[in-house]
Amino acid sequence: MKPSGPIPLWFEAEDGMLLIGDCGARSLIDEAGDTPLFVYDMGTVRSTIGRLRVAMPDGLHLHYAMKANPFPPLLAAMTGLVDGFDIASGGELAMALEAGMAPDRISFAGPGKRDDELHAAIGTGVTINLESEGEARRALGMAERLGVTPRLAVRVNPDFDLKGSGMKMGGGAKPFGVDADRAAALARQVIDAGADWRGWHIFAGSQALDTLAIIEAQAQTVALAARLSEEVGRTPPLVNIGGGLGVPYFPGDLPVDARAIGLALEEALTLPPEILEESAFAMELGRYFVAEAGVYLTRVVDVKESHGERFAIVDGGLHHQLAASGNFGTVVRRNYPVAIANKFGVENAAEPVTIAGCLCTPLDRLADKVLLPPVQEGDIVAVFMAGAYGATASPSAFLGHAPAREMLVGG
Amino acid sequence: MKPSGPIPLWFEAEDGMLLIGDCGARSLIDEAGDTPLFVYDMGTVRSTIGRLRVAMPDGLHLHYAMKANPFPPLLAAMTGLVDGFDIASGGELAMALEAGMAPDRISFAGPGKRDDELHAAIGTGVTINLESEGEARRALGMAERLGVTPRLAVRVNPDFDLKGSGMKMGGGAKPFGVDADRAAALARQVIDAGADWRGWHIFAGSQALDTLAIIEAQAQTVALAARLSEEVGRTPPLVNIGGGLGVPYFPGDLPVDARAIGLALEEALTLPPEILEESAFAMELGRYFVAEAGVYLTRVVDVKESHGERFAIVDGGLHHQLAASGNFGTVVRRNYPVAIANKFGVENAAEPVTIAGCLCTPLDRLADKVLLPPVQEGDIVAVFMAGAYGATASPSAFLGHAPAREMLVGG
Repeated sequence: MKPSGPIPLWFEAEDGMLLIGDCGARSLIDEAGDTPLFVYDMGTVRSTIGRLRVAMPDGLHLHYAMKANPFPPLLAAMTGLVDGFDIASGGELAMALEAGMAPDRISFAGPGKRDDELHAAIGTGVTINLESEGEARRALGMAERLGVTPRLAVRVNPDFDLKGSGMKMGGGAKPFGVDADRAAALARQVIDAGADWRGWHIFAGSQALDTLAIIEAQAQTVALAARLSEEVGRTPPLVNIGGGLGVPYFPGDLPVDARAIGLALEEALTLPPEILEESAFAMELGRYFVAEAGVYLTRVVDVKESHGERFAIVDGGLHHQLAASGNFGTVVRRNYPVAIANKFGVENAAEPVTIAGCLCTPLDRLADKVLLPPVQEGDIVAVFMAGAYGATASPSAFLGHAPAREMLVGG
Repeated sequence: MKPSGPIPLWFEAEDGMLLIGDCGARSLIDEAGDTPLFVYDMGTVRSTIGRLRVAMPDGLHLHYAMKANPFPPLLAAMTGLVDGFDIASGGELAMALEAGMAPDRISFAGPGKRDDELHAAIGTGVTINLESEGEARRALGMAERLGVTPRLAVRVNPDFDLKGSGMKMGGGAKPFGVDADRAAALARQVIDAGADWRGWHIFAGSQALDTLAIIEAQAQTVALAARLSEEVGRTPPLVNIGGGLGVPYFPGDLPVDARAIGLALEEALTLPPEILEESAFAMELGRYFVAEAGVYLTRVVDVKESHGERFAIVDGGLHHQLAASGNFGTVVRRNYPVAIANKFGVENAAEPVTIAGCLCTPLDRLADKVLLPPVQEGDIVAVFMAGAYGATASPSAFLGHAPAREMLVGG
């Protein structure tokens, strides 16, 4: 038997049926037409963002890194909840505009921006977070050809990392941004070229659950922004201090203490270094806003035994939920939180079962030897924490299965 | 500096430009319209299959496991080269039929077949490789409702594995097939129910480079098929002995010795156990047929330095080539074979460079500190061994970039 991750506490059942945004899982499937299905509860997203706003200093901008979940109805709902979108490609630019986000509230980071992407973004008035001197040259050239003043920020590869983060984005040689010791010179250069310099983008890491490490990285980020701004001799209009707040996926994971982070940040920003007194600050979060709001529902098509072990085979799998299968950015496979949606909260004799996806590969495993109520054909398996990096971060065309359906509730 | 995998020996250059199927990489990109681009050389596929036919015993069927690469023009060309297609979903069934493969030369394996997939496959006359007693019940019920005699084979979870294989498909508790000790009873059951029993499907593992291990697994497979057939008391029309022949991706990898495998198999099949004397045998291969025939071409959009390391950022990445990034089924990241397509075979001062994809994640790395001729903006990076498990086995919607283009040459 292996443990599974913690199911978010607020999920409830009615007559043993898991409720998502007050609707029963089975009726949501009926409404969507079939499994596999991602359900995103906008009520949860709203309360996550609302709680974070209360915890954070007044005036802190909250940006949504839309790569976490670009489902169009969710994006459209997000425009009214956050202060800006962070995009990572020309495709995301088109989706952000389609969702109704104003271009001057969009910023574009990504180490490999192509000329056609720079053309679309600069032409629309989106802020480019410059990743290198070469990209600055290309962006300035593009703006000149377009006859516009480009909005350019400088993305800094900080000389520290976010300790304990799932993805380290700083603290050593990185493909992201320019090294801190060259950042001021690059900002100076774009200012001298007549661009509208928007400030700094400093991103040390993501998916961290260590509250103190986040507080420390944010303090270092504010100090670095101040030092660089002094070097430039200008107050940056905006300092994007990145995100990094993780969510609990695995056994033993605990949520971050957003209140403690907010208090520490408030202290740092109440008496900021003089050169940042007029600066706005933004925190950029993707996963933190949406992961807990999503549930992946997939139907058991077969239950079988092999060498004394029990397997439930579902009609979904790693083609929709690569991260839950343990094949994306994790070295050791651990179980996401899972349940039988139609036997939720029911006191039942539990038995260990492996939930395997429908793909013909041993990699396709959604839960390994977890304790669940006895599983039968037709049961609905719920994989929680599925609102971020699910449908779009998985190889959906693999083995020719249909893409997952997606729906928004509580919108 | 880290080594990269072996570039297939037959690739040549003309004036420093990599040739794929006698065409220069740059002109292929012009023809396709843009990077990133997968080019598949049908000439290579044909010669791989041709060499294998010569090495293998006369009459051995060769099946193509189309999950490796279902690009429609490639599939269409494959129909004339192999004796059957193995499919893994209803979507693949539709693609196989569209490509022109006859239903009676298609077999369908996969642990999580849904009722709608069984409906389509049984209705079309495709062979179902039964994965469990429950699936047999559902398949027989479906055939009865359709009023047809279903073609049913039994997939066996063998009690041995393929040693050294990248993916173990047997030898312990597995979600695939039925355990060997229950296989004969299941075959008996479908025969008694009036189905057209097609025989056995025994798949011990895939991506093995150890020739002796493959020979041993094949001998065990033939022996197991004989033992099970004796238990049933019937000669199976077909024994699908699986595949398992790997291809060299990484430094130090050597190709398997197909001739030695063929000789050993010939010996086993010249004097087969009596009950298998009238049986046909099939080998099922995906990756082995197509991996070497594919090259992924992606353009350098930026070259930069960070903390003394050199990075070339390309317009492709793990959203098209998940396996090359080291994030699919491998524990330790190693480099695929890579080159600069427009500086191929050129004697040039080499320097270590990391090829990073355009995605905003540290996971997106196509080559780590490899020695290449000096890289510049606009150069074309070629990732070899890209013909299998590339475009469809990668999260193509991740971060909203365009899907890769694909083209077939030498058709």
